[in-house]
Amino acid sequence: MKQLQKEGYTYIDGGVCAAKGFRANGINCGYNPDKNKNDLGMYVSDVVCNAAAVYTTNLVKGAPLTVTKENLAATGGKAQAVIANSKNANTCNRDGVERAREMCEIAGEALSIDPKLVVVASTGVIGQPFSCEPARNHIDELVGGLTYDGNSRAEWAVMTTDTVPKEVAVSFVLQGKECHLGGMAKGSGMIHPNMATTLNFITSDVAISSVLIQKALSEVTEKTYNCLSVDGDTSTNDMVCVMCNGLCGNDEIVAEGADYETFKEALFLVMRALTVMLAADGEGAGKLLTCEVKGAPSFEVARTCARSIIHSTLFKCAMFGEDANWGRVLCAIGYSGAEVDVEKIDVTFRSENGVLPVCEAGYGIPFSEEKASEVFAKDEIEILVDLHQGEEEATAWGCDMTYDYVKINGDYRS
Amino acid sequence: MKQLQKEGYTYIDGGVCAAKGFRANGINCGYNPDKNKNDLGMYVSDVVCNAAAVYTTNLVKGAPLTVTKENLAATGGKAQAVIANSKNANTCNRDGVERAREMCEIAGEALSIDPKLVVVASTGVIGQPFSCEPARNHIDELVGGLTYDGNSRAEWAVMTTDTVPKEVAVSFVLQGKECHLGGMAKGSGMIHPNMATTLNFITSDVAISSVLIQKALSEVTEKTYNCLSVDGDTSTNDMVCVMCNGLCGNDEIVAEGADYETFKEALFLVMRALTVMLAADGEGAGKLLTCEVKGAPSFEVARTCARSIIHSTLFKCAMFGEDANWGRVLCAIGYSGAEVDVEKIDVTFRSENGVLPVCEAGYGIPFSEEKASEVFAKDEIEILVDLHQGEEEATAWGCDMTYDYVKINGDYRS
Repeated sequence: MKQLQKEGYTYIDGGVCAAKGFRANGINCGYNPDKNKNDLGMYVSDVVCNAAAVYTTNLVKGAPLTVTKENLAATGGKAQAVIANSKNANTCNRDGVERAREMCEIAGEALSIDPKLVVVASTGVIGQPFSCEPARNHIDELVGGLTYDGNSRAEWAVMTTDTVPKEVAVSFVLQGKECHLGGMAKGSGMIHPNMATTLNFITSDVAISSVLIQKALSEVTEKTYNCLSVDGDTSTNDMVCVMCNGLCGNDEIVAEGADYETFKEALFLVMRALTVMLAADGEGAGKLLTCEVKGAPSFEVARTCARSIIHSTLFKCAMFGEDANWGRVLCAIGYSGAEVDVEKIDVTFRSENGVLPVCEAGYGIPFSEEKASEVFAKDEIEILVDLHQGEEEATAWGCDMTYDYVKINGDYRS
Repeated sequence: MKQLQKEGYTYIDGGVCAAKGFRANGINCGYNPDKNKNDLGMYVSDVVCNAAAVYTTNLVKGAPLTVTKENLAATGGKAQAVIANSKNANTCNRDGVERAREMCEIAGEALSIDPKLVVVASTGVIGQPFSCEPARNHIDELVGGLTYDGNSRAEWAVMTTDTVPKEVAVSFVLQGKECHLGGMAKGSGMIHPNMATTLNFITSDVAISSVLIQKALSEVTEKTYNCLSVDGDTSTNDMVCVMCNGLCGNDEIVAEGADYETFKEALFLVMRALTVMLAADGEGAGKLLTCEVKGAPSFEVARTCARSIIHSTLFKCAMFGEDANWGRVLCAIGYSGAEVDVEKIDVTFRSENGVLPVCEAGYGIPFSEEKASEVFAKDEIEILVDLHQGEEEATAWGCDMTYDYVKINGDYRS
């Protein structure tokens, strides 16, 4: 997968450990009966961080989200560690909030920090009783194994049906200091705006106020995770959490301006890369779909159209079948709710194998089926839509609908 | 499948030919290369009917819908015949409206009636050039074969990925006259509110004004077709058309009252039965899902929740896997947009094999996995939700998501 290149930013390894002063670890503590699979992850900063988070818009919210929100409010946007488990979402449990608080206490005690500085997250089956005992029994092992290169172990611990770990980081210069921002994401199904994020953790060594982290995060989320759909189901446990510890040594960014923009661009590059990775690893996905809508009267119209196309089950099936069924693209724009003039729309499919224009000004144009087969034979397909009714644009990401998606979700609980 | 029983109404055979004075036929004229499959259907009333229709809300509308709307407006709600083809939707074609008008002319000429009295419909692939020549070349065969029991032949002509024909009719007494109302429906995929209907044709021998047909149709649609989802894709060519020829001999119903209610109830029974048939025959469907939401503060809240559950891809996969994953039911309510108190909601699964309560007041309750397997082993599953926040209720229908859905839609166009 190609990363978006941007002058001044270099992609580096390290994920959530790319920034200075972050240690991480992941272990199996028993939530997952398969002892070879990590199910409990943690990362911790050497010093207290400024932090911010965004959460799912689902009315049904995981108890860990409630507790994380509480903690960030109580500390005025400070955090130092994250503890996260997979296999059980701790959602729709009568004692869920108590258990989530207990997880913070277990982590806080082991790390000798205030439990309110702990961000807690869970992912897995909804509505199953959650016990802290596995975590409590293995917390010393987890904390004892924290290292400055433990990012992958932590990432593996939060994976569910993910087939590959998803990590990315960038380095860049700010006030003459070398800075880093990196992140990890878990998520494969139950992914849809808003927030289409599942769990995403981002760390940086930049010094920046919590208020500005929140602002940058909210803005970037709109153009990245909120433009992603795997299956149209908005999860109950989605969260993106950003923690910045200031160890790169810059003067704290406390107002918008060039430094803020430099930080926000780093955040955008990392969150965009994770978004694309999430789409490509969508449950059962065979193809990564990228839909670019341009010529729109507003960003909202462009995004509404792009998301509707990416979300259309029928279109996703057509992509699985490598079928140039562009009628479903127009159909999805038509029911999206966006006010557009259908008779101005051009549609083109593109892959590394070539470009295939299929619709001009709302009507079909002849194309070679042979050429179509060639274009669709690749694993990354772009759907290019020009509305010809303005200057704005948006991109949405998703994946095809496959037998495997159905299989994975037919017996997820068991 | 059990039909909803209602005193005073008897289910009968005959579909669109159950009402007096309606003849029908269906043939293969060449739109479908398989000569054994009908692709052109027609039915015609002996006398001019009062008529009304509702259409898809998709901005991309099939040309036949535009022309049918034009015709009903020009005649002030009169119609006498329907001509419909499958295999080509005549949508997104530059000359689509001209071709749809031509279909009306071909039918009108052959029947010696005003072309404006012809309702035209097409279903199939979007964006492929449409020719009237196959219909023109076979119109005499089509008209010559019209009979008072030709309903099934017409129904077969509009089927696409449908696996079974869908017809139903009722008889009832109104003003001492024996009356009939029947219909047929086609549709299997690309089915979602609003209008989640694909093509539906309903006939009756009741005498009733076009204005009241429209009113009854709009009301009943809200509680039937608009509560149906197969895949979340709102088609471009959906239409329900009701034609009433008055041949049962009642005095024309021109105002609301007992007679109007009797007619509306018949329309509800027929449209509800067709809705359930469409859900059960959803593309690739293995199970019919019926979701009843009660205890809601309003019908809209009840329907929003019911539709969101039925529409959830993840929940549909769980039903395919016979997995009592009720967390996905709560999750779908949570992101539906309905304002509800999650901590009051009960969820129960039911089939002919028994009843399985799984969630009480928003939290999981223990249940036997053995009992769950038994309940889910049936082909018709009910999802019963009690919001405990009011007196209103709604029902929505859908089906599970299966490998076959993906297969069917992966190569639909070819």
